Order: sequence, then C-alpha cells, then structure tokens
Amino acid sequence: MIDASALLAVAVGEARLGRAEGGIPIGAALFDSAGTLLGSGHNRRVQDDDPSTHAETAAFRAAGRRPTYRDTIMVTTLSPCWYCSGLVRQFRIPHVIVGEARTFSGGHDWLAEHGVEITIVDDEECVRMMSEFVEAHPDLWNEDIGD
Amino acid sequence: MIDASALLAVAVGEARLGRAEGGIPIGAALFDSAGTLLGSGHNRRVQDDDPSTHAETAAFRAAGRRPTYRDTIMVTTLSPCWYCSGLVRQFRIPHVIVGEARTFSGGHDWLAEHGVEITIVDDEECVRMMSEFVEAHPDLWNEDIGD
Repeated sequence: MIDASALLAVAVGEARLGRAEGGIPIGAALFDSAGTLLGSGHNRRVQDDDPSTHAETAAFRAAGRRPTYRDTIMVTTLSPCWYCSGLVRQFRIPHVIVGEARTFSGGHDWLAEHGVEITIVDDEECVRMMSEFVEAHPDLWNEDIGD
Repeated sequence: MIDASALLAVAVGEARLGRAEGGIPIGAALFDSAGTLLGSGHNRRVQDDDPSTHAETAAFRAAGRRPTYRDTIMVTTLSPCWYCSGLVRQFRIPHVIVGEARTFSGGHDWLAEHGVEITIVDDEECVRMMSEFVEAHPDLWNEDIGD
C-alpha cells in the first residue's frame, strides 16, 4: 500500500528548494509502483530562465529514459497544468498524487476521465507555499501558466 | 499572410539535424505572428538520453520566457503528442502548423476543439523521414510516445 503523504514529502522538499532559490515553489517526484524514487525536481523558470521546466517535467527528465512508465507514480505539490497533464497521459503514467488543487486546478479531472488514478492529499504546507507565492509574485505565477 | 510551408522548412531543418545525429527526426520552431523565428529545436531523446525533450518543448525552451505566447505559432514536423499538445493549450499558443499527421496523430483535434487553429501541410519529406525512422527503429519510436 502506497503512503501518499510519504511520497508527497519528497515533492514538498523539492518545492522548498525551489522557494529557497527564489523560484516558483512547485516540486514533483516520479516513483515506481513499489515507492522507490526514480527522479525528482522543481520548477526552474526563474532559476534557469527556462519556461519549459515545470516540476513534473523536471522529475520526468531526472527519472530518465524507461521502456515504460506504466509502473510509475507522479507526485506533484500542485494540480498539474495542461502541459504536465499531457505528459502524464502520453507516457501512460497510471497514478498521480496531487499535494493540493485549491490554488490552481489543472488537468487532473481530464486525466481521471482517461483512467488515471488521482489522489488529492490537500496538504496544508502545499497550499501555504503556493498561496504565499502567488500573492507575493502574481506576475511570475501568471507567466508560468501562460495567463 | 503566413506561408505555412516556409515556416515548416525551419522545423524540417531541425528534424534533419536530429536524423543526422542519430536521433528521432522530429523538429519544431516557434515563431511570432509576423513570422519571426523565436526559437527552434528537435527531439533529443537519443542524443541527451532525455525523454522530456520533444521537438516542441525544445523549441519552446529555445524561445525562452515571454509574458505571453498568444502571438506565437508553433510549427512541428509531426502531429503533437499529448505532452506537446498540453504545452500548446497551457500557454495559449493560438496556431499550430503540422508537417504531417499520417505516421502519428496526437492531440491536434483536441487543440482544434479548444480554439487552436490547426494547419496540416501534409509534407512528403516529413512523412518520409518519420516513416523511414519508425520502420528502422520501432523501439525508439514506441519509447518516445510511451507505447
């Protein structure tokens, strides 16, 4: 049995790193179905001036090439945007654990419609990190989601 | 008036580079609405051992941070997969020019349903590059689309 909160803690650690670097505090981690970490990362828009590195794409890149992702779990501190939801759907990642979907709701309902298991933890620290960041840097947040 | 074939030629050039490097021959380029090139790139799964760099994400990264992408055109040699279609939707890229959708059909109909203008050029060189590659390296191609 997977402990969603324990896996989420790794993604939260990545989000804290991103915040400490002055970046957008979203973290993610890819695990195998046994709960072994394959790769983790965080949003690097500010740090690398890179609009393409969302937390989920960073974790996916860090996990590296695999013949299949059908045995993996994507864990992210925030509901995945369309870009990251598309990643999950294309690579048939069957389970997404979401820290929170209150400050932003992306494509997790769409993924559920396409058979992806969605676990929303509704973690207070995730909500606090994002809501504080959005309030302090609305421009950066809007840029990150193309708004 | 945008000349879709002229813009596609830049993406085709990227796909040829990818092929010459022994990689998956898919190229993409992001232009502004006046047809000025903002950034281009190609799939780098083989070259960098990076599953996250599809042609469209490479072009998006190369174009860099912008306050908005609502004035841009994504040009790709192949119908965008869900991952890259999600990128287009999230960042409100309003127009996608597709070299071909015969060897693979991704999310371009979904994008059209969400208001994105889709232009399919049905370019013979794009079809030939992809079909030759898929025949020669079915394993790499299936890995690239999570099949």
